[in-house]
Order: sequence, then structure tokens, then C-alpha cells
Amino acid sequence: MELWFTEKANDYVGLSCRVREILTRKQSIYQEITVMDTKQFGKILLLDGVLQTTTKDEFAYHEMISHVPLNSHPNPRKVAVIGGGDGGTVREIVKHKSIEKVVLVEIDADVINISKQYLPEIAGGLDDQRVEILIADGIDHIQKSKDVYDIIIIDSTDPVSGGPAFDLFTSDFYTCVYEALTKDGIMVTQTESPYYEPEAVQHIYQAVSKSFPITRLYLAYIPTYPSGMWSFTLGSKSKKPEAMANKHNQGFPTKYYTPDIHKAAFSLPVFVQNLITEK
Amino acid sequence: MELWFTEKANDYVGLSCRVREILTRKQSIYQEITVMDTKQFGKILLLDGVLQTTTKDEFAYHEMISHVPLNSHPNPRKVAVIGGGDGGTVREIVKHKSIEKVVLVEIDADVINISKQYLPEIAGGLDDQRVEILIADGIDHIQKSKDVYDIIIIDSTDPVSGGPAFDLFTSDFYTCVYEALTKDGIMVTQTESPYYEPEAVQHIYQAVSKSFPITRLYLAYIPTYPSGMWSFTLGSKSKKPEAMANKHNQGFPTKYYTPDIHKAAFSLPVFVQNLITEK
Repeated sequence: MELWFTEKANDYVGLSCRVREILTRKQSIYQEITVMDTKQFGKILLLDGVLQTTTKDEFAYHEMISHVPLNSHPNPRKVAVIGGGDGGTVREIVKHKSIEKVVLVEIDADVINISKQYLPEIAGGLDDQRVEILIADGIDHIQKSKDVYDIIIIDSTDPVSGGPAFDLFTSDFYTCVYEALTKDGIMVTQTESPYYEPEAVQHIYQAVSKSFPITRLYLAYIPTYPSGMWSFTLGSKSKKPEAMANKHNQGFPTKYYTPDIHKAAFSLPVFVQNLITEK
Repeated sequence: MELWFTEKANDYVGLSCRVREILTRKQSIYQEITVMDTKQFGKILLLDGVLQTTTKDEFAYHEMISHVPLNSHPNPRKVAVIGGGDGGTVREIVKHKSIEKVVLVEIDADVINISKQYLPEIAGGLDDQRVEILIADGIDHIQKSKDVYDIIIIDSTDPVSGGPAFDLFTSDFYTCVYEALTKDGIMVTQTESPYYEPEAVQHIYQAVSKSFPITRLYLAYIPTYPSGMWSFTLGSKSKKPEAMANKHNQGFPTKYYTPDIHKAAFSLPVFVQNLITEK
């Protein structure tokens, strides 16, 4: 039997991969959580059938969502991750020696438990002593945090209308994020494909811009996300991220990120630049 | 009826898109040529069922395969394009005012004829007075050209074993390309996805390196090519491409390329850099 999984980005395009085995499939309070094994992408984590991360290319996403903001800040000590229950973002954050505390705010404990069991190569960083795991609503946590975090990373599912992550992409939430950040604070959120979802990219960029004086879009190649071109939107209180305030050699290995890639990621193709400069 | 086209990059992964209409399908002497219309990618040109270009994202490929070498050369006047019968690469080349002659060497006249009829927005540049079209074997033409071209662009199908383009990816051919180029000459060839075909990228880079003292890999986001991360290998006789010898404002509009993107495209993720530095 040839078993294939197809993820449709919309009604007109989809990415398919052959499945070796469904490793687990569980309905949690919030969503259906699936881990499957494939030849092309290794193990894949799905939430409600939507691909979240794969062991083949997760390094690109997790390195770029974490090292870019961390190396844009002069001295990041305290970080919050909203979502990110698979642990990959935390794994990258704790590589930085300056980090004293990482608070992971994940609403669904089952995502963490299943990731620890089935994706230990991704979830391993969650065991670091500096990591505090809160099973809680990310919006509630950020709303009651004032002047606390140097970096806030929003590592959520997509902004689907009516979905659990939708309110994480609103200007009201970004205002709360701004207030939860310390003086030189920086936030990053994953923000869809400029090729497939240009309006979403544009909308989120404008929403972040309302709260943050410095707003930037940057890109990474992630083959398992729709179109392979993925964007991140960064809001900064004072530091220009492309200036790389933290130039110290961090002394840890990476598979994607380099200081050179950090700067290059902010160079946008014309059609992407037009999305965020048009009013 | 829902009609879907699926292109499998290998036995384990494929990209699918919904088809509105098959516009034409013809068996030429060399291959099956198909043009179909889709909602997601607009019109798609297929050769032997393999996606070559789409009206939605062709600008990324054609701008990056042409403007990068042209702006790396101090004064490009004469260019050869091997393959490229759809005309998109030529369309970009003739935007440069310094260009006096472009020779398109396409083995299959039907690719040109069908592109002109069904993809005029891509093929339009072929009507420029500086363009000479040769229906001929690209290897033969390059072998008998000595010290003729400032730029040679290899815009071929993939290096499939036994396929018509296979010999365009050999070190013997790159030696001929070197000899066909003038003193500061530069060649570029499209070279597969580092995510899906790392060995091919590595192999071609090494083959180009045997003939050219300066060899570079650069990248572009092309959602309809496998993985969305596409590589180009550039060989240069004397000029470092990242230095951008030709800094003049060309004064024409682009959708992807900028001088900033030119430089950023040479910044490689660690796993890609490792492919071309490991021996």
C-alpha cells in the first residue's frame, strides 16, 4: 500500500509526501495531534492536520525564529515563547549563554508530552534548567506581564479565522507584547508565505507597526511550509535588527543560521518589499 | 470535475495544483510539450511532464538567472542562452542597455513556437532585434565558439540521467564554456534544490570549479520548483560576482531582483555551504 499525506495550502495547491507510518494520533482538549514518519521529511508533527514541523527541515524554522531576535538584542536574558510546544525554539534559545530564563507558554500540554515522546531531537531543550513551562493561554500571560521579557517569540499555528491562534495576530495583542517587553525588547512572530498569503503578510506587518517603532520582515527557506518561502515579522523598541547588536561568536553549531544569513534574510525581493511599503 | 496535476520530485514527495484547462499538448521531435492553465500558478509550461515555468513565479527564476551574471560583469555585450526556449531569460537580458547581441540556442523549435503562442508575456523578448535564435544543439554551438561570449547562461531542463540536458552538467562541457567566454566571462547554470538534491548540487559545483577559478552558488525562492529553494552555480574567469562590477542603475523595473538581493543570494545557510566546501 502506498499511503500519501497531502496538505492543501488552499483549494488549488498542495504538498504531498509518502507516509511510512502513523506513529501517534490523539485528540487533545484543543486539537488533533498526529506524528507520522515519512521518507522525505522524517517525522512530521501535525496539529488538526496542518504540518507544524518536520525533523528534516525544522532547523531552518527554529534557528531563524530564535537566533535572529536574540542576536539583534544587546543582552537577552529573559525570553517568552508563545506556543512552540514542540520545543524546537526553546532548544535554540538555550544555546545562548546570556539567557537566564525561558518561559514557554503553551496552551496544550499534550503537544509537549507527545513531542517529548516522539520528537526528542526537537523537544530536548525543554529539559534545560532555565526553562519554565506554563500550560496557559499565551494572551492572558502576556497581558499580565509588564516590562518583563527581553524577547518574546510567537511560535504559534497559523492565523486561521476562528482558530486558536487567530488573536495572536491582532494589533491589540501586539500592544500587550510591547508592554510586556523591557526597554530594548524585541518580538518576532511567524507570518506566512508572501507568495501564497500576501494579504496576511501585509496585514500582520501593519498590525505590528502600530505598536513598534522598528518593524522588519525577514525570510527563510522552509520546504515543508507552503511555497517554501516563509516570513517572520519582527518588532523592536530601539535596536535595528539588521545591525546585529549582539556580535559575539556564540560558539554553538547551527545548520542554517550564520551572521551573514542574519543580514541577508532582511533583503527582500521587490514583490515582498512592495507588500510592506504600499499603503 | 476536479482535475489535479501532481509533479513528483522523487518517489516520496510531490507538488499538486488544480488544473483549469489543458491549453495545448504536443509531442515534438524531442519531448512532450504541454501548457496548462491553473488558478494557483497561472499558465504552466511542462516538458515531458516536468514543470519548467509558470506565469505566477517565472519572474524569480528568469531575473535571478540573468541579472546576477550580467551585473557581475563590467560590460556585458554578447550573451548566449543554452535552452531557455520559453524566452523568459532573453526577456530579462535585453533589458540591459549594454547588450548588443543575444544568441538563444534551443534544440527544440516547438518549445519556442508554443511559448510564443501560449505564453507571450514570457516569450515577448524573443522579438528584440538584438536576439538571434539558433535551433541547434547547445553543446555543438559552445564547442565551436571560442572567445565569443561575455556571458553564457545554461537555462536547461534538469540533469536527468539519459535525458537531453544531461551532458550540459559535465566538467567537459564547462571546459568548452570557459573557452567560449571572453576574458572576463561569466557562466551561470540552474542547479537543483540543495534540500532535495544535495549530491547534484555538490557534483555540479565541483565540475564547474574544475574550469573556473571563481565558482559561487547562489539561491532564489521559487515556489514551483521542488522545495522552493533553488540554486544557481556561477563560474567566473576574473570577477567576483558578489562585488557587482556593474553597479549602474539599470533603470528597468523588476519583481524580484535588486542589488541588495544580488548580494544576499550568495549568503548560504550552513548546510548549503557545507555541500560545496566539503571535499
